[in-house]
Amino acid sequence: MTFRISIGPRIRKSPYFDATVAAGVTDMTIYNHMYMPTGFGDFEAEYRRLTETVALWDVAAERQVQITGPDAARLVQMLAPRDISKMKVGQGRYALLSDATGKLINDPVLLKLAEDRFWFSIADSDMEYWVGGVATALGLDVEVTEPDVSPLAIQGPNAPLVVADLFGDWIRDLRYFAFRETELDGIPLILARSGWSKQAGFEIYLMDGTRGTELWDRVMSAGLPHGIGPGSPNVVERTEGDLLSWGTDTRPDANVFELGLGDFVNLDMAPDFIGKDALKRIRAEGPKRRRVGLFIDPPVLAPAEHNWTVRGPDGDPAGTVSIAVPSIRLERNIAIALINVAQAGIGNRLVVETPEGPRDAEVTGLPFIQPG
Amino acid sequence: MTFRISIGPRIRKSPYFDATVAAGVTDMTIYNHMYMPTGFGDFEAEYRRLTETVALWDVAAERQVQITGPDAARLVQMLAPRDISKMKVGQGRYALLSDATGKLINDPVLLKLAEDRFWFSIADSDMEYWVGGVATALGLDVEVTEPDVSPLAIQGPNAPLVVADLFGDWIRDLRYFAFRETELDGIPLILARSGWSKQAGFEIYLMDGTRGTELWDRVMSAGLPHGIGPGSPNVVERTEGDLLSWGTDTRPDANVFELGLGDFVNLDMAPDFIGKDALKRIRAEGPKRRRVGLFIDPPVLAPAEHNWTVRGPDGDPAGTVSIAVPSIRLERNIAIALINVAQAGIGNRLVVETPEGPRDAEVTGLPFIQPG
Repeated sequence: MTFRISIGPRIRKSPYFDATVAAGVTDMTIYNHMYMPTGFGDFEAEYRRLTETVALWDVAAERQVQITGPDAARLVQMLAPRDISKMKVGQGRYALLSDATGKLINDPVLLKLAEDRFWFSIADSDMEYWVGGVATALGLDVEVTEPDVSPLAIQGPNAPLVVADLFGDWIRDLRYFAFRETELDGIPLILARSGWSKQAGFEIYLMDGTRGTELWDRVMSAGLPHGIGPGSPNVVERTEGDLLSWGTDTRPDANVFELGLGDFVNLDMAPDFIGKDALKRIRAEGPKRRRVGLFIDPPVLAPAEHNWTVRGPDGDPAGTVSIAVPSIRLERNIAIALINVAQAGIGNRLVVETPEGPRDAEVTGLPFIQPG
Repeated sequence: MTFRISIGPRIRKSPYFDATVAAGVTDMTIYNHMYMPTGFGDFEAEYRRLTETVALWDVAAERQVQITGPDAARLVQMLAPRDISKMKVGQGRYALLSDATGKLINDPVLLKLAEDRFWFSIADSDMEYWVGGVATALGLDVEVTEPDVSPLAIQGPNAPLVVADLFGDWIRDLRYFAFRETELDGIPLILARSGWSKQAGFEIYLMDGTRGTELWDRVMSAGLPHGIGPGSPNVVERTEGDLLSWGTDTRPDANVFELGLGDFVNLDMAPDFIGKDALKRIRAEGPKRRRVGLFIDPPVLAPAEHNWTVRGPDGDPAGTVSIAVPSIRLERNIAIALINVAQAGIGNRLVVETPEGPRDAEVTGLPFIQPG
């Protein structure tokens, strides 16, 4: 059952759109109001490139919410559960944004570009309005905008080889989430060590949307000796490696403690941030659900198209599968699920309501596969 | 050039998803993080149903931002450019939401369900975060949520016949945007006189997401004698009738005066709202661009896939086409554009940069077709 995606001006085309069409893109989604490639016609080859050589991804849809002005740091600190005063220019931090009830509303990377200039590099929700709503209500002296910045990801074990060929050996000293402003053939960009995979990887934040094809082609050429090819954020690799997919794994109301991300949230620091009180309460009471892995019994299942209900052996509700895929490296059905704490013990047996009927499953730890 | 749309759990399926698949949906988009049908394989037949008989649309993706609590009316008044104190329960109003700079950030219908309960029935941007950000920053005593409410639209000249057969003749007395809470075979719903077309029409706000197929089938059966069939928001009909498409016509920074929607914004009332000062300034200075129609010279153009640049006869930038389609009723290429005021006079000649090359065009008034 397949459907065409409507291509029209309500949704933006990425600066790499034409390049991905030339590279044979076959499948797309929409992310932050922009078309984003999700397949080039050979899923297994794309998975192998990502896990064995190197892949090039159009992730321009990972948009930036830019905050500038005298109150920029103050506003960022109101939103992000990290001590911003300790961040240096050129550093990035995973910043889990919660609302006042403790619900996770986005999981961006926060980049500090200057003392009064920050980017939230966002997952698929309009954080510009959250940031802007807070700033407007408080009359803060900031500008909240979406700059012309479009990431291109280079992911896979050979990514450092490609990126070193392009930029030089200094890239090997970049720490995770660190970045540097630079250029390539005069194309203005930021190079960051980051990316939505558990492989080695970098992201090039293109800062001139008219030069997407040029950048794509340049990286592709440099990558050829290293086995590069087109790809996209990979649902099997991310499930095996337990990368969070905001929206998939979090809807409609998950919090960081249920998701096992409490270590990224500093409730004990001095600065306050939105959601801190609610999260303290949740921590004190203990989360009600837990993010766990499931091995679902054979035969091979088609990847989940929507959330599946999980029940205990007696038919009582136990939780929800957010994603289920056949693992290529493990050769079995794996899933990530949010399960009531009482039923979330490793080894516990549950029943998953799949479109192919109820299927037995066993709770396991995450990730399924440790990075490299 | 067509692409498959990825179907996965990051994007929600509408309660009518299965029913639209059974009805033969072929094309989809994503709107408010939900799949939304955009075609059933015969565009002209769908257009004829909408303009000559009646069509049934899955518009569940038109989500509701619900605001409840003691400060609900106060918060709504801070956001909407209408005098909320004059709204009665059961009334709806077109509510153009602007940010502090005057930029239009959504154009929802505001429904008043109780003195302390409102819905913004939103276009495709996450207004939950705008509303929530303001409420959180000010510590207002409200809850901002997305309720289980999924509109189904019945649009076309025969829509009143279908809806009267289903609900009774009282529906003929509903004024535009007015609504009533009721039920159908025990299915809880709100019936509203509204819909994103220039035809007669109603929307059924389903209030139990488990009963989508049942509701779809019930309406389809009642509509058969009146020529009903599946359809979706129609780009040609909306362009002919000059309905605003938020995102298409407004990106990235249009304001209500440029869009010709100043009459829906009350800058002279007592209550303040976000954006009022900026909009007063824009009104005083006069908008810099104007939303106009363009007749683009033959031959027939394919519908626009993205915004097109418009230039004056000397090649100087004049503005942007937001949508261009071949009009079925007028049998010529029509477009909606945002044009610099100096070049926006009726009859002015411009040049549109289409993918098929530059094409002469003439400025005209809107709408192209007055509602019947």
